[in-house]
Amino acid sequence: MRATYLYGAGDVRVVDVPDPAVRQPTDALVRVVRACVCGSDLHPYHTKPDNAERTTMGHEFVGVVESVGAEVRTVLPGDFVIAPFAVSDGTCEFCLAGLQTSCAHGGFWNDPRLGTAGGQAEAVRVPLADGTLVPVPGVDAGTDDARLAGLLTLSDVYGTGWHAAVRGGVTPGSTVTVIGDGAVGLLAVLSARQLGAERIVLMGRHPARTDLGREFGATDVVAERGAAGIAAVRDLTAGGSPIVLEAVGHMPAYEQAVGVVRPGGVISRVGVPQYAEAPVGFGSLFGPNVTLTGGPAPVRAYIERLLPAVLDGTVEPGRVFDRVVGLEETPKAYSAMDDRTALKVVIRP
Amino acid sequence: MRATYLYGAGDVRVVDVPDPAVRQPTDALVRVVRACVCGSDLHPYHTKPDNAERTTMGHEFVGVVESVGAEVRTVLPGDFVIAPFAVSDGTCEFCLAGLQTSCAHGGFWNDPRLGTAGGQAEAVRVPLADGTLVPVPGVDAGTDDARLAGLLTLSDVYGTGWHAAVRGGVTPGSTVTVIGDGAVGLLAVLSARQLGAERIVLMGRHPARTDLGREFGATDVVAERGAAGIAAVRDLTAGGSPIVLEAVGHMPAYEQAVGVVRPGGVISRVGVPQYAEAPVGFGSLFGPNVTLTGGPAPVRAYIERLLPAVLDGTVEPGRVFDRVVGLEETPKAYSAMDDRTALKVVIRP
Repeated sequence: MRATYLYGAGDVRVVDVPDPAVRQPTDALVRVVRACVCGSDLHPYHTKPDNAERTTMGHEFVGVVESVGAEVRTVLPGDFVIAPFAVSDGTCEFCLAGLQTSCAHGGFWNDPRLGTAGGQAEAVRVPLADGTLVPVPGVDAGTDDARLAGLLTLSDVYGTGWHAAVRGGVTPGSTVTVIGDGAVGLLAVLSARQLGAERIVLMGRHPARTDLGREFGATDVVAERGAAGIAAVRDLTAGGSPIVLEAVGHMPAYEQAVGVVRPGGVISRVGVPQYAEAPVGFGSLFGPNVTLTGGPAPVRAYIERLLPAVLDGTVEPGRVFDRVVGLEETPKAYSAMDDRTALKVVIRP
Repeated sequence: MRATYLYGAGDVRVVDVPDPAVRQPTDALVRVVRACVCGSDLHPYHTKPDNAERTTMGHEFVGVVESVGAEVRTVLPGDFVIAPFAVSDGTCEFCLAGLQTSCAHGGFWNDPRLGTAGGQAEAVRVPLADGTLVPVPGVDAGTDDARLAGLLTLSDVYGTGWHAAVRGGVTPGSTVTVIGDGAVGLLAVLSARQLGAERIVLMGRHPARTDLGREFGATDVVAERGAAGIAAVRDLTAGGSPIVLEAVGHMPAYEQAVGVVRPGGVISRVGVPQYAEAPVGFGSLFGPNVTLTGGPAPVRAYIERLLPAVLDGTVEPGRVFDRVVGLEETPKAYSAMDDRTALKVVIRP
């Protein structure tokens, strides 16, 4: 089959690889119907050394089950499934607590230790299929593009925005600031709105994106960055935002979050941190009793909650996709997202 | 009157200063009945440059009101009062939310900008007396030492341990690890026990202290530090502690906290951080969805809750004091705590 590999910084290739197959009795083999490129895929796209081994890419996909191992019980060949970005057994302490990203036996896609490859391919072997996959009755590969796009967001980006809002403690009436107008930030806006936030300040400077943010529920947009952006948000929120959702992962976004959060407030991070250390001392988090929370979203825990409104069209998280490419054009999807001519790109194998 | 000043590292002196007096209509003048030295006082005691201006010291005291300004309503001359370590107006948004350490008009003792001096003195001018002071009917300067010691802990150290436990989310049945066997750590143990924690692992290596910790409710003591200490706690808690209370403030304690916390767990800090930055990236907090919370305790918010059991002797937080000195001997209190021959020292002016 054809699958996407990263060979070095900026060097994405779609190449021939052996067809994946069921190897363990708990595996399923899934033919990919839609995949996409994640903002976090751009981090290795920027930094991967040329002399490192090539890596498979992609951790967001929906598809149709082709075959299953002997012990798989909850999905059958022919089922349309959503594959969350974490593999999970569904039975361990952490899965039962809704923290599938910390599953005792799971892991992530593209992990050689786990034997997982990536979703930007024609097919994927899915370990621990009962725990990992969510079947969606009534949907198939021929379902319309908009609905498939919405379902695809449940594999990561929508659940990630939702996780930011849940961990941030958004409740009816909340005032929330969202940092970042990428797909995760926009879906954090949508999620905060769904959870009842009354005031949602979106920090972002790409009008096409912040306009979609307004449609998703942002009540205010702050385009400034740095000190000016912080001052603008503190002004809009009369002294700081009680809840800040950080959907970027770079240090300036963290600093922005610390700058706009209200004493006693919470910063909920879902952008994968591109830093190991950050300010947490008396002058940043400690003095004002600010809580720092978040992490990789256990999207598996949220799919049942979020699915109905996606299926009935009440919400349209799939609107974060603004381009579609075929699998062979995946390298163009990366470059388009990298140069910001695309917000988020669907791959149609 | 006589008051304590820090002149430089290791150089504490008790000197003559002008008597304090009511200056604002919202002030009270309080004659100190008991004060004490805080673990956080040792930070400037270690680091203050010799050429810096001398500073007043002490932020924990109980006493008797001598006089009040014209607008003071809730305390009267003759009242016995507890003075929390933060000055607060009691009326702003943050005070009403129980976050008096972020009071819009308040601040801390020993702050020249606020005009506050320290509690290690014969008397103290208390700004915003209605918001700051808590009168305790039925107690006076002649109350027995044990009860006065218990009341004194409500000015900081007990409320700080309580804050750690509250922010950590301790509830009946919780498993909690407390890092640090200083007075705050021991009272974090007591607080966790009061909030119903079932398993309380205390990390500390001073047997006299950890023995008191066991009396306060610790079910296990881990004396090892570093990797061995982390391994011991992870073993005792079957893979990590869901709640970690960090009561030290130095980087090794933070690293210990990150090492022992369970995925999805919370680290609640009340030790004043002696670092500006710390690990918060994928490999520390983010990957396992660990929450970092805590800060300076709004002890004012907790006094009414904690007072009855102190007054009736049900709990004895005052047992963290293991020495009493007169005001003139305050320098000895610092050196005894610094060389760990005393856990926490009462000053009796």
